Amino acid sequence: MSSFSKKNSPLKGIVPPMITPLNQDGSLDTESTAKLIEHLISGGVHGIFILGTTGEFTGLSYDVRRELIFETCNRVAGRVPVLVGIADVSLEESIKLGAYAAEAGAYALVVAPPFYMNIDQQEMCAYYEQLADAITIPMYLYNMPSHTKLTIELDTVIKLSAHERIIGLKDSSAHGVYFQSLCHAFRDHEDFMLMVGPEEMMAETVLMGSHGGVAGGANLYPQLYVALYEAAANRDFEKIKKYQYCVMEISRNIYQVGGFKSSYMKGLKTAMSFAGLCQAVFAPPLYPFSSGDVEELRSRVEKIDALLKENQL
Amino acid sequence: MSSFSKKNSPLKGIVPPMITPLNQDGSLDTESTAKLIEHLISGGVHGIFILGTTGEFTGLSYDVRRELIFETCNRVAGRVPVLVGIADVSLEESIKLGAYAAEAGAYALVVAPPFYMNIDQQEMCAYYEQLADAITIPMYLYNMPSHTKLTIELDTVIKLSAHERIIGLKDSSAHGVYFQSLCHAFRDHEDFMLMVGPEEMMAETVLMGSHGGVAGGANLYPQLYVALYEAAANRDFEKIKKYQYCVMEISRNIYQVGGFKSSYMKGLKTAMSFAGLCQAVFAPPLYPFSSGDVEELRSRVEKIDALLKENQL
Amino acid sequence: MSSFSKKNSPLKGIVPPMITPLNQDGSLDTESTAKLIEHLISGGVHGIFILGTTGEFTGLSYDVRRELIFETCNRVAGRVPVLVGIADVSLEESIKLGAYAAEAGAYALVVAPPFYMNIDQQEMCAYYEQLADAITIPMYLYNMPSHTKLTIELDTVIKLSAHERIIGLKDSSAHGVYFQSLCHAFRDHEDFMLMVGPEEMMAETVLMGSHGGVAGGANLYPQLYVALYEAAANRDFEKIKKYQYCVMEISRNIYQVGGFKSSYMKGLKTAMSFAGLCQAVFAPPLYPFSSGDVEELRSRVEKIDALLKENQL
Amino acid sequence: MSSFSKKNSPLKGIVPPMITPLNQDGSLDTESTAKLIEHLISGGVHGIFILGTTGEFTGLSYDVRRELIFETCNRVAGRVPVLVGIADVSLEESIKLGAYAAEAGAYALVVAPPFYMNIDQQEMCAYYEQLADAITIPMYLYNMPSHTKLTIELDTVIKLSAHERIIGLKDSSAHGVYFQSLCHAFRDHEDFMLMVGPEEMMAETVLMGSHGGVAGGANLYPQLYVALYEAAANRDFEKIKKYQYCVMEISRNIYQVGGFKSSYMKGLKTAMSFAGLCQAVFAPPLYPFSSGDVEELRSRVEKIDALLKENQL
Repeated sequence: MSSFSKKNSPLKGIVPPMITPLNQDGSLDTESTAKLIEHLISGGVHGIFILGTTGEFTGLSYDVRRELIFETCNRVAGRVPVLVGIADVSLEESIKLGAYAAEAGAYALVVAPPFYMNIDQQEMCAYYEQLADAITIPMYLYNMPSHTKLTIELDTVIKLSAHERIIGLKDSSAHGVYFQSLCHAFRDHEDFMLMVGPEEMMAETVLMGSHGGVAGGANLYPQLYVALYEAAANRDFEKIKKYQYCVMEISRNIYQVGGFKSSYMKGLKTAMSFAGLCQAVFAPPLYPFSSGDVEELRSRVEKIDALLKENQL
Repeated sequence: MSSFSKKNSPLKGIVPPMITPLNQDGSLDTESTAKLIEHLISGGVHGIFILGTTGEFTGLSYDVRRELIFETCNRVAGRVPVLVGIADVSLEESIKLGAYAAEAGAYALVVAPPFYMNIDQQEMCAYYEQLADAITIPMYLYNMPSHTKLTIELDTVIKLSAHERIIGLKDSSAHGVYFQSLCHAFRDHEDFMLMVGPEEMMAETVLMGSHGGVAGGANLYPQLYVALYEAAANRDFEKIKKYQYCVMEISRNIYQVGGFKSSYMKGLKTAMSFAGLCQAVFAPPLYPFSSGDVEELRSRVEKIDALLKENQL
Repeated sequence: MSSFSKKNSPLKGIVPPMITPLNQDGSLDTESTAKLIEHLISGGVHGIFILGTTGEFTGLSYDVRRELIFETCNRVAGRVPVLVGIADVSLEESIKLGAYAAEAGAYALVVAPPFYMNIDQQEMCAYYEQLADAITIPMYLYNMPSHTKLTIELDTVIKLSAHERIIGLKDSSAHGVYFQSLCHAFRDHEDFMLMVGPEEMMAETVLMGSHGGVAGGANLYPQLYVALYEAAANRDFEKIKKYQYCVMEISRNIYQVGGFKSSYMKGLKTAMSFAGLCQAVFAPPLYPFSSGDVEELRSRVEKIDALLKENQL
Repeated sequence: MSSFSKKNSPLKGIVPPMITPLNQDGSLDTESTAKLIEHLISGGVHGIFILGTTGEFTGLSYDVRRELIFETCNRVAGRVPVLVGIADVSLEESIKLGAYAAEAGAYALVVAPPFYMNIDQQEMCAYYEQLADAITIPMYLYNMPSHTKLTIELDTVIKLSAHERIIGLKDSSAHGVYFQSLCHAFRDHEDFMLMVGPEEMMAETVLMGSHGGVAGGANLYPQLYVALYEAAANRDFEKIKKYQYCVMEISRNIYQVGGFKSSYMKGLKTAMSFAGLCQAVFAPPLYPFSSGDVEELRSRVEKIDALLKENQL
């Protein structure tokens, strides 16, 4: 079990929201999982976050979720912290999965609000407190209004941060004012981790003092996002410009094929299948690109690969 | 297992979305469940729908969901059709619960779209088809955009209605044009059940030819909603006026105490606890009213009780 | 000036939101305006509402708005009440236009909330009260959340209804529960007019006791909507079924060509141009259909024409 | 008339969206206008933007708008560029106001999409092109989805940027990914101005290479925002930290009194009235704070004043 604790140094850097490698029958592709973990760690990531939105956590059965937790914690074997998403609509199922993750050696849990009922902030607050009381390892809040319909408002974050096991927040809202408000509120609490989800915003928020990013693209190109993070942390503007360019090209080209609401998910996992990191197999309700979209993506990925090569990444 | 089939007469009337009676420790309150079922059946309801939004399905563990299915099917014992909500974010978990419900003797399943990912209509369509292929009893679509962020668009409903196991739709959107568009599209398919969720709209939609309503208030006052349904089905405008008045008074008074997004849920279940039909115990993220709100509700319920008495209901 | 007053009988029936006939140069097509007015009155409408959303009021210059008011009041010459939309973002401009309309002989004004600022209900309430104090003829509230981003909440309507010059509400929200809540709140105030915008919901809401509809399609086929209104008012279900079928066919076919957010506007005005009732000229930001869309629409309109002929409409 | 032209150096720095000083009777407070302009220019601002959202443009009559344009251009007298908001729902009214502003000596126009109709990107594009063709001075796009319901999508901006008179965009969406996508798309077009509205995001976006900010708070404390802009442009992180702290304190304290949707507007203008820069008079639908809210604001403003004094601002 984790020996990390709050009031220690917060997690910093790039923590990819790991995609979940699947076999055609929906079972966990353990071979790809092992390969992907090595790819990430050798790419320099500072942690691995499994069972997030990019990990298609909602589409997986509980059996697959548990298997992924077990496999990942075992494979990673303490080399980097493992963060485990346990968001659910049922508090009891979240608690069960959290206990399993703690037992498996996870560093911390990541929890979006329960995402079906329309609730008020006081209900959200009570929910998080019940959960935090029931788990044994630290927990990050996960703000994801586009998927949960709910925003964890600033005052709620402040209130929850008093709980000894709530140690930070990942914000995927893409709302720049919200995130700066968090940075301001926690300016004297360096130990409260603040990271953004959207990789396009990572550099600027690190420049402003936040801790890093949960960058989906780091599944494919971990070294790029690590290099951008370090450039931002070191205020090396020449490198920021160079790497941010690459990140934006990925965003513009890989995440938008086909015009689906899920194009990011489909583009990322399919591009990773080109690199042999997983199969292009999705959990329902997602399904693979048409062959036309695959070919369009392939030609785009080739250009990105060449671009990164030029940049020695 | 069910002997009902598509191309037979569709379900009509009042099908309450049954609240889930819970004990303080979160387990199923089986005694109240039994009592509530008798209350509903003796009140004349035409079916019972468990594990809907009003049933707090998302807040329940899978163990409790299965127990509720088993208890309900056993207690009802074929006296009215039992509909079981199996909406989930994981297709596999939906299928498992659907198989359990079929085995337990459910009449049909009710399924909202997977409610986390932002998906397109074609993905939603594929999802429903995979599910319908994997289950063995009929299924109703459940349109609930306020909670799922997704609308099952008219053309998707039309396409899905071709599946032999998809036999109707419950619409909780409160969108009058959407519902009339459904009624028009299925005007020659009397066997495709169309019901509204919001009880305030039930009478008018039945007047226009739809099949009934999934009225939450029927948990408390089943005879009122049955009487209103029958008045509408019989085009008895004097009775419609009288009973619609009661339904609107309930809506205005019982469902709006405290100004919570969840006031409907809290008001209904708490009012039912006054009548001894369940405890005022909720699944997280909901929790009980403050004592001030309870007292406010109590005085409102007393007036409603008196009103119904006046109307011999 | 109007001799109608509150506490008299409310307006009932079909009040088409008249489209604004325009010339290519953006000026008012007065000839078509005259023809259209005769078409509507001979079709049996119970009032004419100019400068609503269907009338493209926002796209018109104030000169054109005033000219339309003058022309319409003059042409109608008291044969039916003329309602004039004066919604604006500037209270002062609304008041000026309201004074002009009163002078021209309008029966009443119709006002949506100011549609740019995000405001609270108390600000909306104060705004309406200032406006109502400053005008000299009656006023209808206009609930149109899809365009204004604001809902006139039930309690706000109730509060505003106390003003002697606020005599009703047109609801274009398509929200069935909202509208039934209004009907319930005003059940003992028969003089407070309640009408729905979406023509697909008109029959059912009239059956439930409301006063009629502001039906866009009545620009083209006034006699159909009048017939449906009368069928609903007379509870003649055979006729309701027949005419509702026609209304839904129009909705499904004429209002959805091309898949634009503005397909309703484009389809209606273009179809009217086929009938010689106006030119297919729009105020920016709308513009005409492509020729492909025009041909698609033409063939659909021919089928609708034949259908209405069959029904002697 | 302006001698600035596209393909010259873009506007950079702090361009406050000037509040509109009003008298109790709704007329322009020309004395305060003159004083405010001197306050801004002596505070070092790089331009002045009148008739934006902060300028309550929608609440003003056209007479007041024209007077404000005339007064501002005259008073500023070329010392800094004057930008004039001409957003409207009527293209014709926009064009008229744009001609007036050009005549008065405005540097450029600023235009949000027409904000009532729900339109598609191609309609928005055509609208902007018609407008740009009809005006004689440069124009900035204004992305303000919270008020207009419409986003000017990236591809639309790219397309419109080809027009010789469209020279930049102000983004008030607060959407960090959207803004970085713009920065990336225009990375080789240094002359296409990109500024953010929300002042909380200004520093970070300038660090990433954008041109400045349309900071509302600069109405009150111009020197602070100018100092923060310069610190960001010079990558002086010590100063960024110090000034960003002040900006966030303003955001947290001055813009959130009373919990209104319009608290930003009310707080800013009322705080400015304390400093004698204008009266606390608003255009409807806004109205003044209650006296309790005024006192709360006053004590907050005193703290901010002290904070800025400490920082020699």
